[in-house]
Amino acid sequence: MSKRQMIIGMHLGNGYGALAEAWRMPGVDPRAYTSFDAKVRQAQAAERGKFQFLFLPDGPHAAGGDIRYEPSGFNLDVMMTLAAVARGTERIGMVATGSTTFNEAFNLARHFKALDIMNHGRTGWNAVTSASPEVAANYGQRIPSSADRYGRAHEMIQIVQALWGSWGKDAWVADPETGEYAKDEEIAPINLGGEFVASRGPLYIPPSEQGQPVIFHAGGPSPNALSLAGRYASGFIAAAFTIEEARAQRRAFREATERAGRDPDEIKFFPGLMTTIAKDKRAALDRRITLTGRMFPQRAMYLQQMLGVRIDPARLDDPLSPEQLSRAHAAGGDPRAVRALEVARDGWSLRDVLAHGVIDYQPVVVGPVTEVADHMQEWFEAEAADGFWVIPDVYEGGLDAFVDGVVPILQERGLFHLDYEGTTLRDHLGARPQYGVDARVTG
Amino acid sequence: MSKRQMIIGMHLGNGYGALAEAWRMPGVDPRAYTSFDAKVRQAQAAERGKFQFLFLPDGPHAAGGDIRYEPSGFNLDVMMTLAAVARGTERIGMVATGSTTFNEAFNLARHFKALDIMNHGRTGWNAVTSASPEVAANYGQRIPSSADRYGRAHEMIQIVQALWGSWGKDAWVADPETGEYAKDEEIAPINLGGEFVASRGPLYIPPSEQGQPVIFHAGGPSPNALSLAGRYASGFIAAAFTIEEARAQRRAFREATERAGRDPDEIKFFPGLMTTIAKDKRAALDRRITLTGRMFPQRAMYLQQMLGVRIDPARLDDPLSPEQLSRAHAAGGDPRAVRALEVARDGWSLRDVLAHGVIDYQPVVVGPVTEVADHMQEWFEAEAADGFWVIPDVYEGGLDAFVDGVVPILQERGLFHLDYEGTTLRDHLGARPQYGVDARVTG
Repeated sequence: MSKRQMIIGMHLGNGYGALAEAWRMPGVDPRAYTSFDAKVRQAQAAERGKFQFLFLPDGPHAAGGDIRYEPSGFNLDVMMTLAAVARGTERIGMVATGSTTFNEAFNLARHFKALDIMNHGRTGWNAVTSASPEVAANYGQRIPSSADRYGRAHEMIQIVQALWGSWGKDAWVADPETGEYAKDEEIAPINLGGEFVASRGPLYIPPSEQGQPVIFHAGGPSPNALSLAGRYASGFIAAAFTIEEARAQRRAFREATERAGRDPDEIKFFPGLMTTIAKDKRAALDRRITLTGRMFPQRAMYLQQMLGVRIDPARLDDPLSPEQLSRAHAAGGDPRAVRALEVARDGWSLRDVLAHGVIDYQPVVVGPVTEVADHMQEWFEAEAADGFWVIPDVYEGGLDAFVDGVVPILQERGLFHLDYEGTTLRDHLGARPQYGVDARVTG
Repeated sequence: MSKRQMIIGMHLGNGYGALAEAWRMPGVDPRAYTSFDAKVRQAQAAERGKFQFLFLPDGPHAAGGDIRYEPSGFNLDVMMTLAAVARGTERIGMVATGSTTFNEAFNLARHFKALDIMNHGRTGWNAVTSASPEVAANYGQRIPSSADRYGRAHEMIQIVQALWGSWGKDAWVADPETGEYAKDEEIAPINLGGEFVASRGPLYIPPSEQGQPVIFHAGGPSPNALSLAGRYASGFIAAAFTIEEARAQRRAFREATERAGRDPDEIKFFPGLMTTIAKDKRAALDRRITLTGRMFPQRAMYLQQMLGVRIDPARLDDPLSPEQLSRAHAAGGDPRAVRALEVARDGWSLRDVLAHGVIDYQPVVVGPVTEVADHMQEWFEAEAADGFWVIPDVYEGGLDAFVDGVVPILQERGLFHLDYEGTTLRDHLGARPQYGVDARVTG
């Protein structure tokens, strides 16, 4: 019996990296935001590391902090980026966020299936709803109610999948000898319409090497997310800060998948992991100070709330005093507070506490390669994860440190594959074949 | 004073060529429909011929005849195809059809501007309305009235252009030394809304090498088309069967452009031209019989209507008899009938009359390279065209015959440039710089 191994995806965002000052780092092209060459290079580096997929989140709006100092976190266009990446890579899968709220089903189905043809069966669609008023405004609309957003999301996924399957699997003949181009009886309109979305079809694209793209979903374990992911998703892009939280979420998504009539192993659960890697802890902390230090005064205020003690942003070089430590507690229900307290108790200066990434939107490891590998092994063996979506601090440099440093350790420990076994994203995920809608899903 | 020279675009459709049996020709990959490599090769061949642009029409639906024998005429996805072509070419422009009826303005603006970044300023958007119920059904909708379609088209173009200009031309700083990433006072929402379309923006994409994509329009010289093209278009993709018709249309579009407050030279008028090239007339006719002969029995029936004489589809090897010729006349108001009669009077067999392409959706030249060059020169010098969109019968082979045979003749005659003078599509078209909406256009 072969040992269970982890699946690794990599966040591919704005061309620089996840952290605010990534664009200013030595070796980084400050114009990488508009450089498709840069993104192809980054994807190739992830492929060198045998990552199973890239994950491209999307707004669509300009995400990020203050544009005066830092770029949007998103790609300028996820589909165009993936088209370039498709032409420049061979094996790595590519999963892009596509809003079910503000896309036409036919257009989305067409773009994703064409990408799946282009990259020879390596595409995944992260089907999410859009809840930000900023996004809605870009479409001259308001954000619908949660019920309507998820109602539309179900219809979108089913109609998109039906369009994907509307050109029958064996319809395409293209035999120059006989002159037969296609079997028209196997190319059928779908004629599907619901409360929110409708399309006649057919979509005139034959199957890819994996048939059609796989579905991902992302976010937290809300009842709506559980229901949607349970029915359709092969992968879930999660946000969980502790092993316990991740285990509980993973279990919930597996149960939801089972309730939908599927095998719980059909959904793979991926917590995030942000990495800042250097030869030792001190160097890694310094690297992260360089990359995020500008935000520390503001984050110190948030740390104050998390720990329930007054913090002077002018005195970040000091650790908490024994008196402060005695009063500090994990306050406010933020799951990250426990970790922040733990790090503070280890005696780090407040600057270093913040440099540990205790306030970030995913769990953070700042340290040497073994520390990253240990984190991943611990979570994986605790069944808190089927793998991770890794968010390097900087793509040029930080990603390489992961690929060249962490990956060999995971491989040595038998936790990660030595090479791609298959060629498609379904192969990489162990996802079952599917063409058109999943007949097991009803309603 | 430099001599006026023609601008040439090339139709890039399904991967095979314009004619029904192109996919079966020797040297053609019968799976080219899904081959992005094939499309990149074809674009590279057009670039070798110094063509100023590729033109990708789009439905979006499956266009074409009987799918049992022939493919859809369209690309499986125009934007994905152009992304691949962008990565595989250096200078040629690329114009894709994007429906103003069934796209979200923000999505369309983003895809086209991202492509314009990717290909370094070589993008054009052929902004058309969708009038086919087949297309509407793919979006679960009905075709709006002509007034509403054009009303929406005007709003779409203005909002898309405003989004393109919403990231100010000098907004992007990205200076690692100072840490300044962008001037936020130059990145402004557009907050535009009309009767049909609205968007807040901004679109977070800086200018391309040409600032933003150029606008094309396509179709016939309807009042709506004249008004829309006159206001926004740098190029018009036309369908005109005779020099007289083309001259009248070109004049009408130039006048419409002037009425909109622009210089008439700002719009370039491109009639279509389908080519089947061989060493001599006989070989070219035979090539076209191979490529379209399957449809001749049906087309013979249409020829019968055009000429007003009975035609026996079983006797296509015979020319019209003297008695038939004496009765034949250009009937029914089809502008192609005059040409059909002319060819029939030359004594060609009915099969060869049809092989001349007298019944096709654009003017056809079937013959040696000089005949193609003569046709282009005649139309160009008669001011019936600023150039052409050339539709090769087969991309592999037929396109090469044009590039290697016709282009050198045109160059020798001083009618076509020897090489690209600039790098952007605006350079190639002589289109004036524009960023955001054109301040001259009102309403």
